[in-house]
Amino acid sequence: MSARQYTDQLQKLDTPFYFYDMQLLADTLAKAVAEAGKYGYKVHYALKANFDPRIVAAIRKAGLGVDCVSGNEVRLAIESGCLASEIVFAGVAKSDKEIRYALGQDIFSFNCESLQELEVINALAAETGRTARIALRINPDVDPRTHKHISTGQADSKFGISYTEINEAIRSLNRLPNIRIVGIHFHIGSQITDMEVFGNFCVKVNKIQQWFVEQGIELKHLNLGGGLGVGYNDPDGKPIPDFAGYFGIVNRTLETKPGQTVHFELGRSLVAQSGELVTRVLYTKQNAAGRQIALVDAGMTDLIRPALYQAHHKIESLTGQGPLQPYMVAGPVCESSDVFAKEALLPEVKRGDLLTIRTAGAYGSAMASRYNLRDLPRSVYSDEL
Amino acid sequence: MSARQYTDQLQKLDTPFYFYDMQLLADTLAKAVAEAGKYGYKVHYALKANFDPRIVAAIRKAGLGVDCVSGNEVRLAIESGCLASEIVFAGVAKSDKEIRYALGQDIFSFNCESLQELEVINALAAETGRTARIALRINPDVDPRTHKHISTGQADSKFGISYTEINEAIRSLNRLPNIRIVGIHFHIGSQITDMEVFGNFCVKVNKIQQWFVEQGIELKHLNLGGGLGVGYNDPDGKPIPDFAGYFGIVNRTLETKPGQTVHFELGRSLVAQSGELVTRVLYTKQNAAGRQIALVDAGMTDLIRPALYQAHHKIESLTGQGPLQPYMVAGPVCESSDVFAKEALLPEVKRGDLLTIRTAGAYGSAMASRYNLRDLPRSVYSDEL
Ligand SMILES: Cc1ncc(COP(=O)(O)O)c(C=O)c1O
Ligand SMILES: Cc1ncc(COP(=O)(O)O)c(C=O)c1O
Repeated sequence: MSARQYTDQLQKLDTPFYFYDMQLLADTLAKAVAEAGKYGYKVHYALKANFDPRIVAAIRKAGLGVDCVSGNEVRLAIESGCLASEIVFAGVAKSDKEIRYALGQDIFSFNCESLQELEVINALAAETGRTARIALRINPDVDPRTHKHISTGQADSKFGISYTEINEAIRSLNRLPNIRIVGIHFHIGSQITDMEVFGNFCVKVNKIQQWFVEQGIELKHLNLGGGLGVGYNDPDGKPIPDFAGYFGIVNRTLETKPGQTVHFELGRSLVAQSGELVTRVLYTKQNAAGRQIALVDAGMTDLIRPALYQAHHKIESLTGQGPLQPYMVAGPVCESSDVFAKEALLPEVKRGDLLTIRTAGAYGSAMASRYNLRDLPRSVYSDEL
Repeated sequence: MSARQYTDQLQKLDTPFYFYDMQLLADTLAKAVAEAGKYGYKVHYALKANFDPRIVAAIRKAGLGVDCVSGNEVRLAIESGCLASEIVFAGVAKSDKEIRYALGQDIFSFNCESLQELEVINALAAETGRTARIALRINPDVDPRTHKHISTGQADSKFGISYTEINEAIRSLNRLPNIRIVGIHFHIGSQITDMEVFGNFCVKVNKIQQWFVEQGIELKHLNLGGGLGVGYNDPDGKPIPDFAGYFGIVNRTLETKPGQTVHFELGRSLVAQSGELVTRVLYTKQNAAGRQIALVDAGMTDLIRPALYQAHHKIESLTGQGPLQPYMVAGPVCESSDVFAKEALLPEVKRGDLLTIRTAGAYGSAMASRYNLRDLPRSVYSDEL
């Protein structure tokens, strides 16, 4: 049920707001859990995609673990009742405070990205006599045998630990008694819809795992990260992503060792389609280039993806009717990048019309700012209407 | 006095934070006011650049007006003691609530961007029997005589009112008794350091003003917007922008009518150099491409300009010494765009070092977000150390 089904109720509300279809969310989470469950896979929700309290509650209820990237996220997950034993904590630059907090909660594992981070976690764990479980974040585009990168772009990033450092870490495990390397972690990118990409990725993981075996390291778990994409162009066509295809290709390609568990950190695919940004048209005009413009009350402060990534979101009118025409849909912020679409096809747009910006449940409200001193966007939930 | 002068005190503080040099800020504001005052020009501070309360207080103390782009900004200015009679309110999509609030405060003028906005302001002003002062925002790249745009890129934007609409507005002034067109408003862009650009712009303003005179419209004020740039590469070389050159070229080129006032909306040039983002190095490592990386505790959530505009900020070490080497300086956020510099030249960087990201007083903290559930950056003021 998209916002369209609730137009009458939504029209009475102050705009802009995020509308969440709580039934679609529950169905999506149930499907992900069921498809992963077929192979005993564990899905951790990438909390960065959306930390709205009702969404976090739905995640907990559906029995997912959580993937956190800050101490605040770990705390939110814990305080929302998520199990610490199912929390992974990633991030290239964890502060001492964040590490101490996560150690205290005895989380499932720290995804680590540098030798120095291993040393710091070891030292902080030693303070209270704990042992931290560690997964090393590996750049799958770097061949462990040569330490050479296959695609330079990928290798020249801030993410992941280099094989030189891994070698050093392995040699020094004796002097790092308060950490235990229990897994390896990957994340190859986001909004990936070509399943073959995941198949090829698993082939690389198999090779990398083999390298670890040769080094005498037994891996209790493999964490394949997130990245499964969604249909931004056609939110109604397939509102629930192809979890069957995704976990299926992993299952057919990934070689696991006996007793080894496989983990995923899905963000976008779990929550994107359940969210929409509903906004009201304040003015229409035509610019000097002859373009029709609809000026709305939502802006880049509410949804920055179009400005930051040139991302495309489908925009629909909830109240207009008639033949479609191209409109530039732009927000109130004094920035030329505050444009949601240069050519959205909409029925004639009038002041007061409600528009909805689809597929906005992931990386939408989570990235909101108060630039121009704008209010943060509110949330409206289908089951509270 | 940059953060460097305070390194001993700053080292004891939790990072990251914005450091503001309150003396440099006061000197910059005084210089801007003095140079503008030579010609009787009025400067309105573009509050969007930074709405930190101490900065707003300094603006008020220095006697500047304020340029606001949201109802919240108008309210902040008023509640901070700025004079309503010196507030301009711009923005392409003002909501009814925002307009009503600003009408109630009897602000200096509304910068209007569409015929429909004129109609809405007229109707809302009529509700309480007021008359709103209006400045029409004109796109200076559009020739009024032909209604044609000189540079398509500029004309195909959401900003400004088209000449067709202005014509219509002028014809319909009789039926819009609760607005009064008192000025015209422009804004040609930001971070402009070539003074000739402002000279050429004034030549266009002269022509446009002539067109208004021919239509029988007397303009009480001209508002030339903002846009004066700052030296991002050399913050210490010329910490105070060339206000003398800027107002000087306007004075030599702009043709004003008797009794007409001239207004400016400066943001960046007033506050950018007074602010720095101070951050601590958490980890260093080398990636597979051989690049040295310094991972710091500030991220794109604190300063989004590098990620959003590929903006360059000079980065310096406050604590390191020795020959300079290239470092990628990256933040903790799980985004490949969370990189402050790909090749900052720094003395050898170690965990615990303090780095400072210069020229961050404008469009820095004002654009902060809580993505990854990170805390909003704090402020530290030189005169409170
Ligand atoms: C390490 C890591 N894991 C998981 C995710 C979630 O990715 P997605 O939302 O594409 O599933 C991200 C996204 O940035 C990430 O960086
Ligand atoms: C209408 C308007 N006035 C003033 C400014 C301030 O510009 P600057 O900070 O470049 O001086 C802006 C910046 O976006 C603007 O859009």
